[in-house]
Amino acid sequence: MAPRPVSLAEIEALAVGAWILGTGGGGSPYLALLNLRQLYRQGTVVSLLDPMELDDADRVAVVSNMGAPLVGQERLTDPRHIARAVRLMEEYTGKRFGAVMSLEIGGGNALQPFMAAALLGLPVVDADTMGRAYPEAQMTSVAVHDLPMYPLTLVDVRDNAVIVARAASWKWMERLSRRACVEVGSIASTCKAPRTGKEVKACAILYTTTKAIRLGQAVLEARREHRDPIAAVIDTERGVRLFAGKVRDVARRTTEGFLRGTATLEGLDAHRGHEFTLAFQNEFAVGWLDGVPRVMTPDLICVLDSHSGEAVGTETLRYGQRVTVVALPGPAVFRTPKGLEHVGPRAFGYDLDFTSVFS
Amino acid sequence: MAPRPVSLAEIEALAVGAWILGTGGGGSPYLALLNLRQLYRQGTVVSLLDPMELDDADRVAVVSNMGAPLVGQERLTDPRHIARAVRLMEEYTGKRFGAVMSLEIGGGNALQPFMAAALLGLPVVDADTMGRAYPEAQMTSVAVHDLPMYPLTLVDVRDNAVIVARAASWKWMERLSRRACVEVGSIASTCKAPRTGKEVKACAILYTTTKAIRLGQAVLEARREHRDPIAAVIDTERGVRLFAGKVRDVARRTTEGFLRGTATLEGLDAHRGHEFTLAFQNEFAVGWLDGVPRVMTPDLICVLDSHSGEAVGTETLRYGQRVTVVALPGPAVFRTPKGLEHVGPRAFGYDLDFTSVFS
Repeated sequence: MAPRPVSLAEIEALAVGAWILGTGGGGSPYLALLNLRQLYRQGTVVSLLDPMELDDADRVAVVSNMGAPLVGQERLTDPRHIARAVRLMEEYTGKRFGAVMSLEIGGGNALQPFMAAALLGLPVVDADTMGRAYPEAQMTSVAVHDLPMYPLTLVDVRDNAVIVARAASWKWMERLSRRACVEVGSIASTCKAPRTGKEVKACAILYTTTKAIRLGQAVLEARREHRDPIAAVIDTERGVRLFAGKVRDVARRTTEGFLRGTATLEGLDAHRGHEFTLAFQNEFAVGWLDGVPRVMTPDLICVLDSHSGEAVGTETLRYGQRVTVVALPGPAVFRTPKGLEHVGPRAFGYDLDFTSVFS
Repeated sequence: MAPRPVSLAEIEALAVGAWILGTGGGGSPYLALLNLRQLYRQGTVVSLLDPMELDDADRVAVVSNMGAPLVGQERLTDPRHIARAVRLMEEYTGKRFGAVMSLEIGGGNALQPFMAAALLGLPVVDADTMGRAYPEAQMTSVAVHDLPMYPLTLVDVRDNAVIVARAASWKWMERLSRRACVEVGSIASTCKAPRTGKEVKACAILYTTTKAIRLGQAVLEARREHRDPIAAVIDTERGVRLFAGKVRDVARRTTEGFLRGTATLEGLDAHRGHEFTLAFQNEFAVGWLDGVPRVMTPDLICVLDSHSGEAVGTETLRYGQRVTVVALPGPAVFRTPKGLEHVGPRAFGYDLDFTSVFS
C-alpha cells in the first residue's frame, strides 16, 4: 500500500487534535500550521505511511522541537531547521532515511515531521513514541522498550549543531541534549536516535497521526454544527470530564529548559465551591480536586476551552479562562510497571502511586 | 627528519616546565605524569615531531582536558579518555590523524597529547595553540587566525560523547562545549577542530614542547645544584621577578565550568609592607601591586614556590605559602590588536589597556 496524501484540511484537523493530545505541552501547533499552510499553497502534499508497510530495514527519522513551549511561541518556526537536523543525522550516520516520524504526537511536534517531510520529499509514518507529549527524552515507548538512545542531532536558528554521539543512559541523553538546548535559547530542532522499520512496528505507538486527525475533525465538526466540542472529544476518545471552572491562579517559570508551574481552577456550575489544581512540567502531570489527587500521568490530562474545545497549553493558560479538564486514556505501554518507572507520577517527583481515572 | 624519541627524563622536565607555563591553570600535570611513568615502564616511548616536518595535508589532532582544574585533581586521569576523544573525531570525520598536538602547553594539558599518542601510536607535534594555558576556546592562536572552530569531540569517564558539529562563532563553540563539559562534571577530554600540517605551520605556536622541557630542565638542574630555581626560570625565559610574599587570602569558587577567584599576597623581604593581588579564571589574568595594575594577560603570570620554583596552580594556592610572582613574555600573536581582542584584559572583563611588563 502506497503512502496516502494528506490534505490541508486534515493538517488543520491534526493541529487541533494534536494540541489536545499535547496535554498542555508539545508546543502550540499554530506557527507550524502557518508554515504548512504556506507549503501547501506552494504545491506541497505530504504523504502518510501506514507503519505496518515499513520494511524491517527501513530507516525512520524521529524528530521533535525540544525546549520550553513558552520560548517556542516567541522564536518563530521555520521548517528548514527540523529538516537540517534530519540531514545532519544522515551525514553523521552515512545512511539515508526513508521516512520521518513524530517523537510525540502532542502539540506542534505532531506537525514537525510534516515540515521536515515537505522539505526532504519523504513520507510521514503514522505513529509516534509518546501518544501524547512528555517533557523528557526517557519518557518514550522506545525508551521503555530499551532501544538505543543515541545518536541525537540538535540544531538551532543560528549555525550551531550538536551531536550527542553516545550517552551512558536515557537520563544522560536527556541531560546532555537538554543542556545544549538550554544554551541555544531553550528551543532547538532535534533528530532523535534513528529507528528501523522493525523497531517502529514493534515499539512505537501506532496510528497516532490518524488518531489526532480524527480527534481534530470531531472537534471542528462539533463547532460547525454548534454541538459541544468537549462532548465530541470525550465521545471520540472515551474520555472523562473531570472539572469545569475558571483559571484563578497561574504560577509559571521557564527553568532548566522547561516550563514548570501550577494552575488553580475555581469551579463553575456543577463544580461551584470546589477547586482543581494542576501541576505541569511542559505538560500537565497531576491534577488535584480539593487537594485530593484526581488524575495523574500517564493518563492524559487535557485542559480545554469550555466553549470552543480548543486545547489550552501550559504557556497559554491565563487568569479568567473558562476551561474544562478532561482525562483521556494513555498508551498501554506506559501503564506497565516499566512504563510507570519512566512516566508515572514518581518520575515527575510526586510521591503518588498511579491510579488511573479509567481503572 | 624523523620524529625523535622523548625520554622519561624529558617527560619529567616537561611536567615541571609546563606547569610553570600554565600560569596557574591547564591542570596539575601530576596525575598525567603518573600515567606516563607507568606507560614508559611498560615500554612506551613517545616521539616528538618538528612541526616544520609536517606535510601540508597531514592531519593533526589537537587535544586537551577541558574543565575546572580543581575537579581535575579529584577525578583521576586515564589516558584512554583522551585517546577516545581522538578516535571519535576520526570516526566522525572519516579521516585518520598523523599526529597529536597540545591545545595548550600549560599544565597537564602539555601531557595529554603524550598519553593519547602512547595509546594511538602517533607522534606528538612540537607546538601548541596558546604557548601557555587559557581558559576558553577562542583564546588560541588558531582562533586569532580565524581558522574553523568545529568540529569538536568531547568524552567523559562514563560512556557519554558529544560532538559539536557546527558553531556559529568561536564564542558559540566555547559555550556549547563548556555546557557539555559542565554537565558531565566540569571535566572532560576533548579533541578540538582538526588542523592540517599547513595550518599548524602557519598558525600554531611552534616548539613550545621543547621550550617547556628546557624550562623544566633548568629548574631541575638548579634544584640539584642548590641554585635558585626562580633565577633559572627568569634566565631561561627572559622573565621578570615581580613580587615575593606569603599567601594571605584565597577566594575561590568552581563555577560555570571554571575555577574563578582572587588571591592576595603579603610582601616579604624586599617587598615587606606591600601587597600583591591576583585574579584568576583557571589561569592568572591580572596582578595588582598595592592596588595598581602591574601585570596582565597576555603576559604570563607565573606564581612559583619561592624555595623550589615549583609552579603553584590556582587550585593549589593556599594560606601561608611562600611564593614568587614572575612574568614571562607571551606569544607575539596575542600582542597584536586581534590577539588582544581574544585574550587581552578586556576579554577577561577587566577594563584595562594592555601594558606589557616587557615593553
